[in-house]
Formats: sequence, C-alpha cells, structure tokens
Amino acid sequence: MKPIDRVTEISAKISSMEIRGAGRIATAAAKALRDFSQTEEAKSLEDFNQRMELAADILLKTRPTAVSLSNAIRMVMKYRKDDLAAARESVIINANRFIENSEKALEKIGQIGSKRIRDGDVILTHCNSLAALSVISAAHKLGKSIKVIATESRPRFQGITTIGMLDQMGVETELIVDSAARSVMNEVDLVVVGADVITASGTLVNKIGTAQIALFAHEARTSFMVAAETYKFSPQTILGELVTIEEREPGEVLADHSRYSHVRVRNPAFDVTPHQYIDLICTEVGAIPPEMSYLIIKERLGWEIEE
Amino acid sequence: MKPIDRVTEISAKISSMEIRGAGRIATAAAKALRDFSQTEEAKSLEDFNQRMELAADILLKTRPTAVSLSNAIRMVMKYRKDDLAAARESVIINANRFIENSEKALEKIGQIGSKRIRDGDVILTHCNSLAALSVISAAHKLGKSIKVIATESRPRFQGITTIGMLDQMGVETELIVDSAARSVMNEVDLVVVGADVITASGTLVNKIGTAQIALFAHEARTSFMVAAETYKFSPQTILGELVTIEEREPGEVLADHSRYSHVRVRNPAFDVTPHQYIDLICTEVGAIPPEMSYLIIKERLGWEIEE
Amino acid sequence: MKPIDRVTEISAKISSMEIRGAGRIATAAAKALRDFSQTEEAKSLEDFNQRMELAADILLKTRPTAVSLSNAIRMVMKYRKDDLAAARESVIINANRFIENSEKALEKIGQIGSKRIRDGDVILTHCNSLAALSVISAAHKLGKSIKVIATESRPRFQGITTIGMLDQMGVETELIVDSAARSVMNEVDLVVVGADVITASGTLVNKIGTAQIALFAHEARTSFMVAAETYKFSPQTILGELVTIEEREPGEVLADHSRYSHVRVRNPAFDVTPHQYIDLICTEVGAIPPEMSYLIIKERLGWEIEE
Amino acid sequence: MKPIDRVTEISAKISSMEIRGAGRIATAAAKALRDFSQTEEAKSLEDFNQRMELAADILLKTRPTAVSLSNAIRMVMKYRKDDLAAARESVIINANRFIENSEKALEKIGQIGSKRIRDGDVILTHCNSLAALSVISAAHKLGKSIKVIATESRPRFQGITTIGMLDQMGVETELIVDSAARSVMNEVDLVVVGADVITASGTLVNKIGTAQIALFAHEARTSFMVAAETYKFSPQTILGELVTIEEREPGEVLADHSRYSHVRVRNPAFDVTPHQYIDLICTEVGAIPPEMSYLIIKERLGWEIEE
Amino acid sequence: MKPIDRVTEISAKISSMEIRGAGRIATAAAKALRDFSQTEEAKSLEDFNQRMELAADILLKTRPTAVSLSNAIRMVMKYRKDDLAAARESVIINANRFIENSEKALEKIGQIGSKRIRDGDVILTHCNSLAALSVISAAHKLGKSIKVIATESRPRFQGITTIGMLDQMGVETELIVDSAARSVMNEVDLVVVGADVITASGTLVNKIGTAQIALFAHEARTSFMVAAETYKFSPQTILGELVTIEEREPGEVLADHSRYSHVRVRNPAFDVTPHQYIDLICTEVGAIPPEMSYLIIKERLGWEIEE
Amino acid sequence: MKPIDRVTEISAKISSMEIRGAGRIATAAAKALRDFSQTEEAKSLEDFNQRMELAADILLKTRPTAVSLSNAIRMVMKYRKDDLAAARESVIINANRFIENSEKALEKIGQIGSKRIRDGDVILTHCNSLAALSVISAAHKLGKSIKVIATESRPRFQGITTIGMLDQMGVETELIVDSAARSVMNEVDLVVVGADVITASGTLVNKIGTAQIALFAHEARTSFMVAAETYKFSPQTILGELVTIEEREPGEVLADHSRYSHVRVRNPAFDVTPHQYIDLICTEVGAIPPEMSYLIIKERLGWEIEE
Repeated sequence: MKPIDRVTEISAKISSMEIRGAGRIATAAAKALRDFSQTEEAKSLEDFNQRMELAADILLKTRPTAVSLSNAIRMVMKYRKDDLAAARESVIINANRFIENSEKALEKIGQIGSKRIRDGDVILTHCNSLAALSVISAAHKLGKSIKVIATESRPRFQGITTIGMLDQMGVETELIVDSAARSVMNEVDLVVVGADVITASGTLVNKIGTAQIALFAHEARTSFMVAAETYKFSPQTILGELVTIEEREPGEVLADHSRYSHVRVRNPAFDVTPHQYIDLICTEVGAIPPEMSYLIIKERLGWEIEE
Repeated sequence: MKPIDRVTEISAKISSMEIRGAGRIATAAAKALRDFSQTEEAKSLEDFNQRMELAADILLKTRPTAVSLSNAIRMVMKYRKDDLAAARESVIINANRFIENSEKALEKIGQIGSKRIRDGDVILTHCNSLAALSVISAAHKLGKSIKVIATESRPRFQGITTIGMLDQMGVETELIVDSAARSVMNEVDLVVVGADVITASGTLVNKIGTAQIALFAHEARTSFMVAAETYKFSPQTILGELVTIEEREPGEVLADHSRYSHVRVRNPAFDVTPHQYIDLICTEVGAIPPEMSYLIIKERLGWEIEE
Repeated sequence: MKPIDRVTEISAKISSMEIRGAGRIATAAAKALRDFSQTEEAKSLEDFNQRMELAADILLKTRPTAVSLSNAIRMVMKYRKDDLAAARESVIINANRFIENSEKALEKIGQIGSKRIRDGDVILTHCNSLAALSVISAAHKLGKSIKVIATESRPRFQGITTIGMLDQMGVETELIVDSAARSVMNEVDLVVVGADVITASGTLVNKIGTAQIALFAHEARTSFMVAAETYKFSPQTILGELVTIEEREPGEVLADHSRYSHVRVRNPAFDVTPHQYIDLICTEVGAIPPEMSYLIIKERLGWEIEE
Repeated sequence: MKPIDRVTEISAKISSMEIRGAGRIATAAAKALRDFSQTEEAKSLEDFNQRMELAADILLKTRPTAVSLSNAIRMVMKYRKDDLAAARESVIINANRFIENSEKALEKIGQIGSKRIRDGDVILTHCNSLAALSVISAAHKLGKSIKVIATESRPRFQGITTIGMLDQMGVETELIVDSAARSVMNEVDLVVVGADVITASGTLVNKIGTAQIALFAHEARTSFMVAAETYKFSPQTILGELVTIEEREPGEVLADHSRYSHVRVRNPAFDVTPHQYIDLICTEVGAIPPEMSYLIIKERLGWEIEE
Repeated sequence: MKPIDRVTEISAKISSMEIRGAGRIATAAAKALRDFSQTEEAKSLEDFNQRMELAADILLKTRPTAVSLSNAIRMVMKYRKDDLAAARESVIINANRFIENSEKALEKIGQIGSKRIRDGDVILTHCNSLAALSVISAAHKLGKSIKVIATESRPRFQGITTIGMLDQMGVETELIVDSAARSVMNEVDLVVVGADVITASGTLVNKIGTAQIALFAHEARTSFMVAAETYKFSPQTILGELVTIEEREPGEVLADHSRYSHVRVRNPAFDVTPHQYIDLICTEVGAIPPEMSYLIIKERLGWEIEE
Repeated sequence: MKPIDRVTEISAKISSMEIRGAGRIATAAAKALRDFSQTEEAKSLEDFNQRMELAADILLKTRPTAVSLSNAIRMVMKYRKDDLAAARESVIINANRFIENSEKALEKIGQIGSKRIRDGDVILTHCNSLAALSVISAAHKLGKSIKVIATESRPRFQGITTIGMLDQMGVETELIVDSAARSVMNEVDLVVVGADVITASGTLVNKIGTAQIALFAHEARTSFMVAAETYKFSPQTILGELVTIEEREPGEVLADHSRYSHVRVRNPAFDVTPHQYIDLICTEVGAIPPEMSYLIIKERLGWEIEE
C-alpha cells in the first residue's frame, strides 16, 4: 500500500461516516497527515510540499463544511519550511500538539466551566454535547449540588442520551419536551450547550432549538454558556462565508410522510444564535466573551484576516 | 328514572371523559339543565330554584376547572324568576340560545377570521384547534392562496392530526418540529392558534409551546391571532383566581421513565401567553383586541365584577 | 330636479374629489341624507325606508373605504322607525347632531389635547393634520411656551404646509427631513399626529412615516398622542376587516421614473402603528387610551360587535 | 354653629392635614356633605342645590389634587333632583354607600388579591400601602407560606413602618435598600404596591421608586400587581389633565443642605409607571387589567367622557 | 515651484473640494507626501523629518475631521528613521502601499461582501456608497438573483444616483421615500450601507437616516452590513474624541426658508448607529464584527492605545 | 527587623484596612515587594525566587479578592529571571512602573474621559468614585458648562461625600435619592461611574445600584461610561472564576434590626452590570469598548488565556 493510499483509506472512512464526530474526524485527519509525512519519500522540500498539499486536499474534500476537519489540516500544514528535515519534524510536532490539545480539551473545558457553576444551581441543557456534559460532570464531582433540566431535542431525541449519561453520573435531572423550555426558564440559573460552529463574530451554529432557548434565557436574565473546543471556531467566516444550515431527511420527523399529498416535512438540523444572547464561550484555553472569537481564530487557528 | 338521575348520568359521562372537548361538555350540560327543567315537578318557584341549583351543582362538580362548563351553566341559570312558568320557559330559551350559539360559533369564527388572511399569506399553527382550522379552511374556501406551517406539538403529536385535516382540505402544508418554530418565523405572515382559557386580562392559556411561538411572532413583527369561542373566556379571573396549569402523566413524554434513578419527567400541559403578544382574538361575535376580554365576559357571559 | 338627483349630484362631487377631506365628505353625506329625507315624498314608513336605503347606498359607493363617510351615513340611518313622521324628524336630528359634533370636534380636541402640553414642551408633528395643529394652536393660545419640530413628509411635502400654518400662528418651529426624526427625538417631549383610520384594536393607520416616528418615540420614552375625530374610528375592523394601504402613483416620488429599465417606484400612502406605541388618542369626547377604541366605536358610532 | 360652619371646620382639618390619608379624607368629606344636607334649612330644591354646591366647593378647595376627595364629593353630589325630600334622602344614601364601600374596600381587596398569591411565593413591596399589606395579610391568614421583601423607601423610610407591620403579623420579611431592588428581582414571584392615582389609561402614579421596580419586574418576567381602592382612579385624566408630580421639601433628603453653595436637593414625591408594566389592578370590585381603568371610572365614579 | 508649494497646491484643491470623496482625498495626500519626500533637498534625517512634518501638517489642516485623510498621513509618516536614505525609501513604500490598498479596497470589499449574499436576497441600501454598491455589483456578477430597495435619501437625493447605477448594472431595483423604510423592512434580507467614520467601539457615523434603518433592521431581525475601507476607522476615538455631526446649510432642505419668521431648518448631515445594530463590517481585509474595530485600528492603522 | 517582617507589617495594615482603597492597597504591595527585593540577602536566583514568592504570598492573602492587589503583585513578579542581579533590578523597574502608572492613572483618565463631555451636558454619577470625579473635574476645568446629578447611594451615603467634593470644585450639582434615578434620566446626557472590578467580558462589578442606573440609561438612550484604572480588570475571570458579591453587615442599613423577630436585613455591597449597557470604559490607556476588556487584561496585565 502506497503512503497516499493510506490517506485515501482514512478519507473514505470519514466520507462514509465510519469516523464521525467533530473531534474524531479532526484527530484522524491530523494523524493521517502526520503518518503520511513520515512514509512518503520526497526528495526535496518542494516535492514534500506538493505531496503534503495533495494529501491535505484529499482529506479536506471528504467533509468540506466540517470546521474541525479544516482546522486540524490547517494547523498541521503550518509546518516550518526551512528544509526537508525541519519540515518533516515540524509536521509531527504540529499534528501531535493538535491531537494532544484536542484530547485534553474536554477535561480542561470541564475544569474551567465548572467554576461558573454555584452550589444549588439549576442548569438547562439541550441536545447531547460532550463539552457541556463535561462542565456539568466536573461541577458535580466538585461536590456542588446541582439539578439539570434536559430537553428531549426532537427530532432525534438526543436528550434521551443526555439523561442516560446524567443518570449514570447520579445528577438529579428533569426531562421536558422542547416546547416547555420557556415555561421552566425562570427556575434556571444557567444554560450550557455545545457548538457545531462558532463564527468570527461569536455567532453560534448549533442543534435546532438552541436559538430559541438562548432567547428565553436572555428574556429571563439567565446566563447562557457555550462549551466548545477551539477547533469549532470557523476562520472562513472572516472571509465573508455564510455557514450553511443542513436540511436533513424528512423521515427523522415523520415516518410515513409520503402518504400526504399536500404536506412537506422541513427538517433543518441547526439554527443560528446571535452573540448578543451568549454570555460566555468556555473553551480549553479560557472562558471568553463571544466578541473575542476573532482573537481565538487568529491566535489559536493561525488565520490572518488579510492573506 | 327520576329526572335528577338523568342529570347524574350525564355528569358521569363528563367525569369519565366519555363526553369531552370544551364545546361538547358545555352543550351537554346546557341540554341536561334544559331537559331537567321540563321534567322535574316543582310546585313553586322556590322549589324550582332549589332543584335547578342542585342539578347545576352536580354538573359543575364534574370538571370544576373547565371554563366552558361553568360558562354554560351560568348562562342557563340566568333564567327569569317572575313565576314558575316564566322560569321554566326562560331556562329553555337560555339553554337553546347557548347551544345554538356554540354550534354556529366555529363557522362564524371562520367567517370573521378569514377576512384577516390575505392572498399569499403563510400561516403558522400549533397543536390542533378546530377554531384555528376553521379560519384557515374558510380562507382556503374563499380561494385565497395560503400555505400553512404546522408544528408537531409534542408530547401528543396533535400536529399530525392537523396536517391530516389540512391535507384533506387540499391546503399546502409544511410540518416542523417544535424547536424549528423560531427558525421559520421570518417567513410567516400570521400565527393562528386556539385557546383553552382566556382571562379577563386577555391572557391566553393554551397548549404547551404556544407562549414560545407568541414570543417569536412578537420578535419578528408577525401577527398573532387567537381563534376562540366566547365560552373560553374565564369570569373567575376577575375575582382574582389564577388559572391552574395541569401537569400530565410522564408516560406521554417518555415511555420507560421508570428505569432511571435520578430522572423525573415534567409534563406541563399548558402555558401562559401574555396579552402583549396577542394582536387579536377572533370570536363568534367579532375580532377583538385582548384588552377587550373583560367586556366580552361582562356582556356575553353575564358576570358583573361586583356581585 | 328630483330629490334623488340631488343625492347623485353630491355623490358625483365626492367621487371626483371636488368634495374631499375626511370631515367635509362626512358632513356632505349627512346633509345630503337629511335634505333628501325632507324632499322625497314617501307615502309609508316602508317606502321611506327603501328610499333612504337607496340614497345611503349611492353615497356609500362613492368612497367605500372612507371611514368617515360610512360613519356619517350609519349615524344618520339609525333614525327611529315608529312611524313616517317620527322617522323623518329623527333623520334631521341625527344628521344635525353629526354635523354639529363634527364641526365642533376640532375645537374640542384642541381644548382637551392642549391640557397635556406643559410649558416648555418640544412637540414633533408629521404630515399636516388639522386635529394635531388644533392641539398645538390651543396650547400656544393658552400662552404655553412651546417649540414644534415638523418633518417635511415626503413625497408630498405636507410638512411645508404645516410650517406655513405654524409660522402664521407665531409658533417657534424647526423643519427637518424625515430621516432626521430619530436624531432629534431625545429633545422631544411629545409627538402629536393625526389619523386616517383607527381600528377597534387602537391601531393607527396614518401617513407613511408615522409608524417610524412612533417607534422612535417609544424607544426614547417620549409620549405619542394621536389627535382624531371619533368618525375616524373604523367599525368594520371589529368584523375582521383589514385596512387596505393605498399605493399611490410613482410620479409623486420621481417625476421621470419611466426612463429607467429596471427601477420601479413604490409609493405606499400610509403605514400602520400598533397601539403599544400610542399613549393617548385625543378625541372630541375625551383623551382615551388606544385600548378603549372599541368602546368609542360602540358608544359613539353605534355598532354592536354582534349583529 | 351654622351648618356651613361645620363644613368649614372639617375643611380646615383636611387643609391642615389633621385629617389625612386618601381614605380618611374622602370619608370625612362624604360625611360632611351628608350631615350638612340634613341640617341646612333650604326651602326649595333650587336653594338646596345652591347650598350643597357651596359646601362641595369649600371641601374640594382644601386639596384640589387629592383624587379620593373629588371622587367622594362627586359621588355624593349625584343625588336625585326630583324634589327637595328626594334630594335630601338621596344625599344620605349616596354618602353612606360611599363610606361603607370605602370601609369594606381594604378587606375586599385583601380577599380578591390574596387569590393571586400561591404557596411559597416571594412578594416584593415598596413604601407602606395598606391595600398592598391587606393582600399580603389575607394570604398569610389563609395559611399560605410567603416571604416578603420590603424596600426601605427613601427619603421617608416608610419601609420601616412596613416591616414593623409584617413583623407583627409574623410574616417572614427581608429589608433591602432601594438600590438592591433589581439585584433581588429574580427571586421575586410577585410585586404588590399601592397607588396614589390611577389614570384613565391605567397609568400608575405612586411613591418615588415604584416605576423603577415595575421596570425590573417587567425585565424579569415577574408579575406586578397594584392594590387600590376604586376612589384612586382619576376621572380628570379623561379630559386630558396631566397628574402633577409634587416636589417635596429638601430637608427630607438632606438635613444640612443649606451649607452647600452649588448643590440643590431634588425631592419628587411620586413617579409614573406606564400600564404596560402593570399586570393587574386589584380593587374592591375585582382584579382588572389596567386597560380597564376607563371602565372603572365610568361605571364606579360616574363620569362620562362627554359631558 | 518649490516642492512645498506643490503640497500647498494639493492642499488647496482638497480645501476647495476640487478633490473630494474619502478615498480620493486620502490618495492625494499620500501621493503629495511621497512626491514631496523625493523632491525636497534635506541634508540630514533631522532636517527631513522637520520638512515632512511641515508637509503633513499643511495637508492635515485642509480637512481636520476627514478621517481618511489623517489615516493616510499617519500611514505614510510611519517611515523608518534609521538614516536619511532609508527614510526616503520608506516613505515611498508606505505611500505606495496605502495607495495600492485603497485602490484595491473596493474590489476586495465586493469579493468578500458578496459571499454574504444568497440567491434570492432582497437588499436595502441607503444613500450612495461605492463600497456598498461594490458588494451588490459583485453578487450580481456572480449570477445571484437579487433585488435592491433604495431609499431616495433626502435632502440631497443620493438615492437617485444609486438607482441610476443599479439600472446600468441591470439589477432589479425599487425606489422608496425614506419614510417607507420600516414598511418594507419585513421583505428585506440584508441591509448594506457605507460609512463615513467607524469608531473604536464599532459605532457607525453615516448619512442621516442610517441609524433609523439600522433600528428597523434590528427590530425585524434583518442582517445589517456596513461596507467600508479600513481607512474609515477612527483612531482618535480611542483617545476619547467624539465624532462631530456636521450641520449643513438649510437650502438643501428648503429653498425659500428665509420667507418664514418663526421657522428654522435643521440639517444634520450624519447620524450615529450603535454597534449593537450592526452585524458585520465588511472591509478589504475581511468581514469583521463591529466589536473588532479597535483591533483593525491597531493592526492596520498603527495606533497604540497608549502613546 | 528582618526584611520579611516589613512585608508582614504592611500586610497587617492592609488586613486591618489601615491601608485601604483599591489604588492605595496596590501601591503599598508593589512598594513592599520592591523594598523587600533590595533588602533580603538571597545568594542565588533560585533562593531569590523563593523568597519573593513567599513575600508575594503573604501580601496576596491579606485581601485575596481585591483585584488591584493581585494585579500589582503579578506585575511586579513578572521580573526577568536571567540572573540574580537582573532579577533584582527588574523587580524595581516593574514596581516603579506600576506605582507611577497608578499615580498618573487618575489624571490621564480625567484627560481622556473629559473629551467625551460636551458643553451643556448633564452628568449623573453614583457612589463616590475618584476616577469618575476626575473626568467631571477635568471637564469643568476645561471650562465646559456641566451639571451633575448625584445619587445619595444608600446605605453608606457616599453620595454626600461626592456632592461635597463637587461643591468644592464649584460644579452645579443636584442630589437625589436612589429611587429617583429613573425619573431624572431623560434629562441626563451621560452617566459616569467608577468600578470595583471589570471582568474579561467587560462586565462591571460596582456599588449596589449601579446596574439599575445602567438599565435606566440604556432605556433612555443615555450614554454610560465607566472610569477605571486598568488594575481594576480581573484576569481570573478568563479562567472561569465568578466575582463574589460581598454581603455587608445589617447595621449599615438598619441600626436596631435585632428588635424584629421575623425580619432579616440583606445588604449586598455590589451588583453586576452586563457589558451591553456600557458604552465605553475610560482607562488611563484609552477609551475602550467593554468588549475590549480581554485585550486590556492581556496587554496590560500580562495574563495569557492559556498558561
């Protein structure tokens, strides 16, 4: 098997969603580039650069809109270009650092985020975010007495996964339908949700229903925290790109939708929460206001606004 | 069977929910009182009054919080008290008028409400309200080109009943999960929902999720119309009573909830929409602003604020 | 000339806009009906009723959407129907009362509205409303020191007429372009505008730009008063009718619009101000909150919500 | 002593504030008119009318801006004018009814208002209102578990009187400075305050600081209830009158203010809360939305908007 | 002609507005400084510095409040101060870079901004901004189907210039009076306007009427984008300076204003839009949130907050 | 006396509040560390480091939540660690720079902040902040005609100190109770307050009542400026820490609180103002938007978000 074939193999697994989840995709791509840089047999720096570009391209095309994937690739590809040896070594260093940071990110987010939770707090969460649950779990482990309200998160009922995990941890939990979120909001002290993408403006793209909950929190003067790894920040939005909202298949909402003549199912997967409704984004490098997202993109993800 | 036993029989059917639905309960009670007034054998007006009071009481106790029931009984019991014959006759007239008005109410609401719908309007509805659907159906029959967006209305999926009815009518319809209501609101021209109770202040008590939708409509400058028969207005709220929000059984939300140790299901059936978010209440006697609710109570339901 | 020809003659003048302005149209129609009732030669009450209906119909058709016209006709047609003589007399009484009330309305509005103006107030007005100017003029005559800011009110520059009238009165006045309304709002103590139509919900339909100014006033906690004769209230809106917003000809905005291939001029004459932005409606019968509009319609204009 | 001298004597006590408090002033005036009507020796109805007018005038001039006083006098002066005997009798009936209603008002307000209080509610109150305390006391006597947060209400520290009364009742109470009202608002379920004047638009004029608290309640989605006898409603506002905000003496705020050369103390006694921030006005005749204030004025206080 | 006279000559043209428009002024000044640095005959670095300071000063005084002018001069004057030769060379480099960047800025803004426009979007624009039109034009050239609504922009009717340019491009356009902006806002997907000045806080100073439109967009949840070259950002605002709003001559609004005795025309040229109403500022270096303005000032314009 | 005893001595004075006030505490700690570094007799860099750490620790423990103290210590402790001599010298430089900057900060804040004040402005201030008064004083000295409204600031009446200082300066001043802040806000052009702590998100922690005033300013579109030295910014909040709100003793509010059985005094010293209500933070290094707080922390206080 040629080195590039190994890259293609991993790419196929990402495409087919055998490898999925923002973190796992990113890590797999970083590893693939790292391993490729050690096995290909470039004779010159120029040759090496070309081969790396090719490999990066193959990986990027598997899920062009997955922000964690492009962030991982960009981080690795910022290798030193002094000479061939330095380049190879630099790829390893970059990849390993990215992988290590990602692996530690959830734990660090838990550490940092749990400081915002006070004894007796009622926390509302939506969908099933590992980063959000890391914050809740860390607070619980610190012995803080907390209660969680979880929405069921139609159409895919990820809230049921969430209550299962909280039940395992021994956290007192209440389950509500999504329509009851505003009714309970006056009891809630803090909302904690995850992120699919965070733009340069601090706008949050997340599971459908998140924007509604953020509005209710804002209306009730309840704090709203996003828990997210830094690789969720989207550099492309600096260049004017809009984040596309995926429309998923109707069967998720209504099994027998085809029996209706005049009815169409609409199933948007995400919605958009403006930064005005977000108090804090808790990342592995600190708890920042959403207005600082551009700085995170610049300092962590290595994108300049002018290229 | 003694006349009063017939009243008890009807009462049992209302209690057991054999007879159910705000309109059907109210009509059954009015008929029961009317029939009783013709069959009991009072010898004096005083005697008649006592018997009628007894019958009214039996009926009222079946569902003390059902506002349509108490409204029906109050309307019938406002019979003339000149003499026995006049009283009997007056009970018939009152009961028949109430029954007739209720029967025509849906159609009239459709007529009046459909005038507010313009050609090309996109209408969002929640849950399954016959009054709201009467407005939509009347507009559709007038040849106005409309599109309806229906929420699925968890936990009992009444939205599926709604899209079935709209599909039958041939109205172009879209189905969304409740969490997508805000995402689509900028496309919507008018929200139309029904009512469980309307208070003296014009506050709406309706299916859980309604208050969220009203907030989204308000935020997006989309009109919000309630379609409701006048017997949905609650006179007791003038006397300071709060409308109680029923908590329904957890199984509606999650079948196997008992397998969790730390999880409780909360299932509030209704929520409360303040009158500031309501543009118009369309009743069978006209399209009124919510602030006029007190007048409707006074003029139609015969309650004075000082008794 | 037959009596009915006189009615037709007046109708023609209303149609051709020889007679125009909400007040003048209403008065002309009331006079026409009054005069007709004295000259036609009905032999029976029934005959009289038919002839009156015919005359009313001719007049109503001239401007079916002019709310003052239909209000005037409805008021006159509520004549007593005991016998022919009483009917004739009652038409005279009704017509004269309507005419007299209308004539005095501007002055009374000035009296009542000027009480809301304090010494030193800065008042903003839009377009050219005689009722609004009556309030300002009355306050000025009472010796209150006031300043008026008038918008130019594109496209027809009615603001220029307004500053001319204020200049005549000797009132200190400032003229601004419509786009500067928000910039000056923090200096303003009170906005006073007129009305084209007021609905049963207290919604105001008035000259394009009014809704913007109401929003600025609301934002700046500046009071917003509408000055309007009671015949501006629209009974039809109780029955669900929407007020249509007239689109006027493009030439008012841009003389040479036809020289463009891809450009269309839009020229809506009115806009819609929700009652939440209106503090008070000053009429000839008192200063009422907009939520009381339904009562005015019922008590003054004689429309029941159920017919 | 001549009958009119007795009226003058009472007037003097009102002027000197020997008789003070909205309720006591009103009752004293009603009694004075009643007693005068029985003692003066008018020979004709016309004579009687003149004498009564004179007495009413003397009383009214003592505190021309006290709305309870003018309401009491207007109610009594609406006596029948058939003949002298009927007039005299009618004055007694009117006066007694007003007095009796006023006396029972506090208790009835307590009964009606306490229904809005749920077990476990936290109630914030401002200043020292007997009507507001009647609501709290009635709820406490019904065995509802409640907590009250009272502001100290600078400059005159009426909050200290309030906590003394609550302490006597055995109600759990917390005292805060006025500046802490917003900080605690998220814990509060219901704000209950009294009223100095309520206008035809449902606007509340009350102790300085009330408007701030209403804004905080609105912001936090906390209910805001006004407890007020119907004689607090101001008919004059229908005729366009503005309620004047009294400026009290500087010494209330700062004892040694005269030692400063460039400092002036401003001490407004009241502020103005718009009806949008008020959920309910609890009166002795029912719990009404503020938008219904005009109706209360019309039905209870006997003022028509057109005279 | 002495070198400094050439600077004076250019300065005169800027003063007299022969050279005008933010971009052209800035470019002219940069060129003047560049050319001067090559022609003056300084003998030492110190001498050179003094001469350059003099020239810069002459240029700056022509339009002291024109932010593009001071930005251009500051950029050029940041030349290296190692020795005379390096200084001369550095001035050329700085000036040429500023000129080149400015020239390319419009095109780059078009590229970046057009990515935010989706097929089918309705775009509202105000006044006549080349940067805003560059965004619209780029989207149109990309084949996106768009419609533009342009305000006429009283008092100088720049909107007529705008519709002429859009007509030339073949973009479907609608013209409205400024007062109709709120009426059409619910149809609009995106507002795009230019800028006169952007402060360190992201506050926008632009043509009178802009702030109103931003408020309407915010109210209707419509996106609001500013298109602006980076030289529009104002470093002085970091040092606490307020941007002065120019008051232009009354004749622009009303030709014959002098015939009135009591009327004054107010003609503010600009207004102030707070950053809360701005979603994105599209510059030639990227699409940034307004909160990032300080960074742009620091990184692009070379001002530190502490000097 | 051993060098470390001198540190302990200063620490004791800070603990006992003999040395108090954010600025004085910070300066004392910086001096203590500086002096200690010159007197202890470390033999190696390692030894020096340990001794310095010990001294820093003793100082930090005196007031662990005083943000100026920890900022001062952190600044000094960032000394160079090349060798012992360099370290000693670097401590002096750091300490002196911190002390000098702090001393000049008030004056610079006055210079920068006073540019935001226009002739004729009415300024409201709360509590007694030297930084806020420096802005006011600088504007007054520049000859700008200003008026100040000062709240009394219960419970400790710091407003009385403020009016005393303003009276000395000759600034026209008005004193109000805290409850009157909203009543006067429409007259106010600018609010200027100080800060206890500013978080990484730009959130302000300041004297109880500040958040209320910020809300009123926001509501009335009045500018809200915070005047604060950079050492008031809190780096810990980047790491997720919440700022604790101190509860002070009840006697400050009510002297004889112990005589009540059911009454508790609550006396929170500070409240929290969200950055959305703050227009500008005026520091000694410039006037920045609150969203820039993170940058100030990073650039001035030397904290990285990832350590």
